[in-house]
Amino acid sequence: MEQDKFVINIGRQLGSGGKAVGEALGRRLGVHVYDKQLINLAAEQSGLCTELFEQADEKKSRSLFSSLIGYLRMPFASEEGSVTDVLSSEALFKIQSDVIRDIASRESCIFVGRCADYILRDHPRAVNVFVTGAPEDRVRRLCEQENVTPEEAEAQMERTDARRASYYDYFSSGKWGEAATYHLCIDSSVLGIEGTADFIREFAERKLKMNLSGR
Amino acid sequence: MEQDKFVINIGRQLGSGGKAVGEALGRRLGVHVYDKQLINLAAEQSGLCTELFEQADEKKSRSLFSSLIGYLRMPFASEEGSVTDVLSSEALFKIQSDVIRDIASRESCIFVGRCADYILRDHPRAVNVFVTGAPEDRVRRLCEQENVTPEEAEAQMERTDARRASYYDYFSSGKWGEAATYHLCIDSSVLGIEGTADFIREFAERKLKMNLSGR
Repeated sequence: MEQDKFVINIGRQLGSGGKAVGEALGRRLGVHVYDKQLINLAAEQSGLCTELFEQADEKKSRSLFSSLIGYLRMPFASEEGSVTDVLSSEALFKIQSDVIRDIASRESCIFVGRCADYILRDHPRAVNVFVTGAPEDRVRRLCEQENVTPEEAEAQMERTDARRASYYDYFSSGKWGEAATYHLCIDSSVLGIEGTADFIREFAERKLKMNLSGR
Repeated sequence: MEQDKFVINIGRQLGSGGKAVGEALGRRLGVHVYDKQLINLAAEQSGLCTELFEQADEKKSRSLFSSLIGYLRMPFASEEGSVTDVLSSEALFKIQSDVIRDIASRESCIFVGRCADYILRDHPRAVNVFVTGAPEDRVRRLCEQENVTPEEAEAQMERTDARRASYYDYFSSGKWGEAATYHLCIDSSVLGIEGTADFIREFAERKLKMNLSGR
């Protein structure tokens, strides 16, 4: 890992505009922004990971069980679902983790979600951020983006954030959405999407002791 | 409440340096910093509140029960302690709340702890911040300040933060230490005490759309 490579990891509440903040930040810094879709795509395109992806498709096979036994945690299996579901979830996390580490070893970049802050906990130049939003802004944003009613937006917020918290808390040692888990948490409703991206850039510059604006 | 008055409310983990950040910020902005001691002192010195304070000292008296019945929540009483303890706790919160609102109506200032962000939720110019710290820095700071062992420092951190969370979550509608409760959360280990104070000042300036540095 070269000395000048950095990574900004962004966790976010649903509807907070966290992904848009990440994209605005990516434009300012001239780096790629990886979210779930891009990480999965990278995993599929990676020769290293194809086999595991194929195995994940055959999740009931004995060979998958054998190859992934090291990632299996029985308490989760007994509480949350069948063994094959757990294997699939654990396998996907393992694949995504390998891809995230691989990308971060080759380039400066931004990751949105996926426990990237925890996966890259040994990265020497990581900035871990969490984006929240005022409830009314989150509802409005979701209604516009998803064409749903305010009630459905609120239900989505609750469901999705609970799922994100469950995913993060299971795979990491931190707690999703708690201030102590991140270097910086910011309410995007205060400064707006662009203002929040600016502010995170300034924080990252001070943390990393480098000028990121002219890249 | 005059238009140009602002208030910065700071919640903090024990040992995070949150109070020191508040004091550094107070020096920069030329405003008073009120923590528990100063708020209690102000309450004692306030003619408005003397009577309630005297009543709180006589917490087993019937008159206290009568005067404060409006603040009593029975579920808390049955779970957490005797009725008189609850009355005392509720009474103190009511007194402190009145003092906090009174101070904020007269001057720009900084409050550390005391649910001030929730008490001042209708203040038009409030900036709500939470300060965390890396565990090793928190332990080191507590060992120096309190002259205790690292083990005792860790025990203090756990006890005190649990008490602060319990206090905040009981009296407010938010959750202590959760990113979504505050406008900005920051790990003081990243930029240090002075750097964190600078960064919060810049955030407050942008939120309030005013220059706070020359006050």
